[in-house]
Amino acid sequence: RVEFSADDAEKGEFPHFMLKEIYEQPNSLRNAMRGRLSRDECTAIMGGLNMSPKELVQIDRIILAGCGTAYHAAMVGEYLIESLARVPTEVEIASEFRYRNVPANKNTLQFVMSQSGETIDTLAAMREGQRKGIRCLGIVNTVGSTIARESDGGVYIHAGPEIGVAATKTFTSQVTILTLLSLLLGRIHHLSSVDGLEMIDELEALPDKIVQILKQADKIKAIAEKHCHAEGMLFMGRQMNYPVALEGALKMKEISYIYASGHPSAELKHGVIALVKPDMPSVFIAPDDAVFDKNVSNIEEVRARKGPVIAVTTEGRTELERITDDVIYVPDCPSYLTPILNVVPLQLLSYYTAVARGCDVDKPRNLAKSVTVE
Amino acid sequence: RVEFSADDAEKGEFPHFMLKEIYEQPNSLRNAMRGRLSRDECTAIMGGLNMSPKELVQIDRIILAGCGTAYHAAMVGEYLIESLARVPTEVEIASEFRYRNVPANKNTLQFVMSQSGETIDTLAAMREGQRKGIRCLGIVNTVGSTIARESDGGVYIHAGPEIGVAATKTFTSQVTILTLLSLLLGRIHHLSSVDGLEMIDELEALPDKIVQILKQADKIKAIAEKHCHAEGMLFMGRQMNYPVALEGALKMKEISYIYASGHPSAELKHGVIALVKPDMPSVFIAPDDAVFDKNVSNIEEVRARKGPVIAVTTEGRTELERITDDVIYVPDCPSYLTPILNVVPLQLLSYYTAVARGCDVDKPRNLAKSVTVE
Repeated sequence: RVEFSADDAEKGEFPHFMLKEIYEQPNSLRNAMRGRLSRDECTAIMGGLNMSPKELVQIDRIILAGCGTAYHAAMVGEYLIESLARVPTEVEIASEFRYRNVPANKNTLQFVMSQSGETIDTLAAMREGQRKGIRCLGIVNTVGSTIARESDGGVYIHAGPEIGVAATKTFTSQVTILTLLSLLLGRIHHLSSVDGLEMIDELEALPDKIVQILKQADKIKAIAEKHCHAEGMLFMGRQMNYPVALEGALKMKEISYIYASGHPSAELKHGVIALVKPDMPSVFIAPDDAVFDKNVSNIEEVRARKGPVIAVTTEGRTELERITDDVIYVPDCPSYLTPILNVVPLQLLSYYTAVARGCDVDKPRNLAKSVTVE
Repeated sequence: RVEFSADDAEKGEFPHFMLKEIYEQPNSLRNAMRGRLSRDECTAIMGGLNMSPKELVQIDRIILAGCGTAYHAAMVGEYLIESLARVPTEVEIASEFRYRNVPANKNTLQFVMSQSGETIDTLAAMREGQRKGIRCLGIVNTVGSTIARESDGGVYIHAGPEIGVAATKTFTSQVTILTLLSLLLGRIHHLSSVDGLEMIDELEALPDKIVQILKQADKIKAIAEKHCHAEGMLFMGRQMNYPVALEGALKMKEISYIYASGHPSAELKHGVIALVKPDMPSVFIAPDDAVFDKNVSNIEEVRARKGPVIAVTTEGRTELERITDDVIYVPDCPSYLTPILNVVPLQLLSYYTAVARGCDVDKPRNLAKSVTVE
């Protein structure tokens, strides 16, 4: 268990808690991984799950439930678990799950995700799962919260107190925990010990890569100030960066009140592109992966309709500078880790946009930190 | 097979194809159901599936893939199949599915949905499924299209030519076919012959109920004109009306260029509510169902932040008039059929909004009718 001091709830040198929490991410990721990566066993160790490999290998269906940012983390989790462990995974919006009658069997495992551990819809989704006899595990931040107490086990993300209403470090920590879970389940099903060791190396390299991204804050601030009067913004991504697009749009809406929405890049032509015009910037998350060229085509479609484009891509992919207005580079990493890195510039972009618009970043209008009423 | 005459491609008395196609829905639904409902067997008959009950009972996982409006219809399908037939169902955006490596087994059945039968991403999703040995069936409108030819079977929706770029009648026909599929699979698994007969009665009553909704066009036109200068719009629904909220928002974006997005009502408090203000109307789809009261709570939250509210609800739920700006009533029907009725006023709302804004309804900017490039 990680202990927090009173200082954790002070802003210190930062003007807002949100910015402080964005900068804490190298450390919050280290805390999420601490003691949970075994080089001896080439896998993740998560004793809190209360499940042996013999039990885990029986699982043939996983349900991930959450609200808001936790729901976006769960969507990344679906990609991770299905691609690394090949276990069919369903993501459910907790408020929908609680009133549905989702098919499940004795080999179904449910995870509920909530920073506070008190989100009412997520708690209700857990209780509904338990009524159906599904084993329900929690992925929460707040030690001793209701979900932590009532679940059949789980994992603390150990991100420390998050005061800003817009979730930042808890998103990257939730995704990190889901990556560890994918490593554990992947090693049970398909991954060799060598595959596991490689994943551990890449995971441990993440915090320093986030430090590299944070060093570009001034550049991101300038981009934000350039576009801060936009009428609306579109966020586009593919594969496991589609949920990152949703999360980037959610941050922008929450704190800057600019209308924003996230979409799979290819869905552009099925309607969203009708919105494209000169005061409607599009943010493309286009890492150097197998669908990079597809994203480039989508960027060109937006440009042809005179929409400004901001791209988040991998260091070295400088060709995007020719077809976009602004490019933010993140360090190279395997595809399955790109969501953790790519969300960081989007957090900074929404933060600096909100500041430029004079918004109350830590306490945006109409929103509460944890949603404990239905 | 239904034959179409050259007249089908003429607007006749209607100023736009889109309006003509909205008004065709009582007939297009009859055509979707014709010859497919058996009172003798109390189930749906879909010979084109090329699958016997002995084969269908083996299916333990269904994948529904589509783009744009077809994706929204597929989302309704997931609710229908899981609630009526209890078969775990996954909805996939076709452009994402084609590049993913979705887990499947020999008892997985895939449906691909496309009006044109030529949508490139949907076609690619079908071919990828077939490469994995999954049986792939099509739900298409255009007879003899590529998906119809290459699939392992399927169902024509028989909606007739759809000329307007914004899909209308093909959405309701796609959802109708998925309802027939749920009836067929439900009867195999859980539904009694009496349950099946009741479903048939309710399905056959739908076309006349749509006629009742269309009679309110003038009222909906007035509501559209009142809100046509909105800066943006939010669409909210729960359960199987959440995809209807997505579809309503898509229509609004496509033809009126008003920024709109659809959300599960309970997700409001997780971020979207930050956008609420006097020039940002919210459209709530709140039928008289088990979550009606929950929608009422959400409407009150929006009202408390001075957001205008337009509600679509069931005849008789007049209490919404006290807490909303405008109410549109639709005839009563079982919950599982509400998406088909509730989408019709949203189609009219977006149509009249676009007309009031002087937009080219049938050929909106940046969009093509069928997306045959990636």
